[in-house]
Amino acid sequence: MKIGLLAGSGKLPLEFLKSASKQGYETVLFAIKGITDPGIYGSADRVYEIEPFKLGRFLSFVKKERPDKMAILGKVEHSEALSFKNLDFKAVTFLFSLKDKRAEAIIGGIIREIGKLGIEVVDPTPFLSHLLPAQGVLIGKLTRDIEKDVEFGFRIAKEIATLDIGQTVVVKKGVVVAVEGIEGTDRCIERAAELAGKGFVVCKAARKNQDMRIDVPTIGVNTIEKIGSLGGKALCIEADKTFIIDKDEVIRKAKNFGVMVIAV
Amino acid sequence: MKIGLLAGSGKLPLEFLKSASKQGYETVLFAIKGITDPGIYGSADRVYEIEPFKLGRFLSFVKKERPDKMAILGKVEHSEALSFKNLDFKAVTFLFSLKDKRAEAIIGGIIREIGKLGIEVVDPTPFLSHLLPAQGVLIGKLTRDIEKDVEFGFRIAKEIATLDIGQTVVVKKGVVVAVEGIEGTDRCIERAAELAGKGFVVCKAARKNQDMRIDVPTIGVNTIEKIGSLGGKALCIEADKTFIIDKDEVIRKAKNFGVMVIAV
Repeated sequence: MKIGLLAGSGKLPLEFLKSASKQGYETVLFAIKGITDPGIYGSADRVYEIEPFKLGRFLSFVKKERPDKMAILGKVEHSEALSFKNLDFKAVTFLFSLKDKRAEAIIGGIIREIGKLGIEVVDPTPFLSHLLPAQGVLIGKLTRDIEKDVEFGFRIAKEIATLDIGQTVVVKKGVVVAVEGIEGTDRCIERAAELAGKGFVVCKAARKNQDMRIDVPTIGVNTIEKIGSLGGKALCIEADKTFIIDKDEVIRKAKNFGVMVIAV
Repeated sequence: MKIGLLAGSGKLPLEFLKSASKQGYETVLFAIKGITDPGIYGSADRVYEIEPFKLGRFLSFVKKERPDKMAILGKVEHSEALSFKNLDFKAVTFLFSLKDKRAEAIIGGIIREIGKLGIEVVDPTPFLSHLLPAQGVLIGKLTRDIEKDVEFGFRIAKEIATLDIGQTVVVKKGVVVAVEGIEGTDRCIERAAELAGKGFVVCKAARKNQDMRIDVPTIGVNTIEKIGSLGGKALCIEADKTFIIDKDEVIRKAKNFGVMVIAV
């Protein structure tokens, strides 16, 4: 069995390649130049490097390889999608066909384009289930104050995520301090700290009816460092629908910073 | 007939006092020190100045005056609500009784507190209907590009407003660039310009089932200056549910900057 991977940045693509290889798959990596970490190229059986937004070129590589299945993983900064430079003809046509340019529309559209070649894009979580936390407190102590903000913030984050705006909402004492747009989670947290000072709670949620093939929430050591160094009190993520990269290190850092982590 | 006004900042309170006086009302202004513009004190028949967050003191003044009706108008920066300094006992009790601290909850709570004194808080729009735009293009030309972003952005702004997060969403080419949290409209627009460059569209919406007594969207000359100076393309507001302060000057400025203004 041959599985293809269209990879953005971050460590999820590497985790996927290792897991798929271990399960006996032949792996083909479609890497995006300047975005995919070249350090993972060695973990795939074959690599195609594509310039960003060269959709026609990408599809022709997929057609040539004809993997049995495809997966899409990793981050493409939402803000990069705004520049839209160096589009090939296929990409232009593709973008015009979208109703809007939010993550779900764009990745959903790519899934359809791959589907037109007769190749199915599959849910990658069977290869990554070890990264998905179960419900519960991962580290720290749930006080009544945190609990209230977690409950409130998570509900709002869920709505924001479902609108396909961003996944992160920062709250403090029942006030929505900051909502993530295209600036990304880190800058959203920085803004919140600047506006509200210490003691904020960061909530990250998946969409209602999250398609696990599309843009699944992901956290890692840097998320905790950002929250901890700015005086945040807690991080709330969604159980079974958030990838935690380097979980042990995440928990160690969270403990050091005194940041509570909870999966709801 | 005596009407009371609890006034935040901005020019809406002045417009209200002038209009109520013209309609023959005796006006009592409850001004918030450091927030309400003292320049409007002269337009009221009587003035009480209250320190911010001295809710007990405010209610005792209202009780003493016993106006036939009350209105609440003007801005209290959402971020100020986070500081919660100098609360009196009543305010502490009040804040603890709220399920969260969003604008709707806070102002709704104050309306209930005033209601307990047997005084009704009324919709101020009968005094301000000259500030509410009808549906249509106020200035500029609606291109197909702007139309698409207006349609998309307004729909999202409506959801955000209904969640009582903020009223403003900035979009560009089908991407939600920035969502207003507690930082206010201006800083949301600045962030959007920084992230997405020129050509963005600012959409401001009222909540679904907007209670016209609570935090009605308001724009003025500064809104247009902000958008225009940063290269924004259009401002979309909600017809009949957005106050335009200094409408003539707003339209003149928008024309100069080449910013289109549309009420949908």
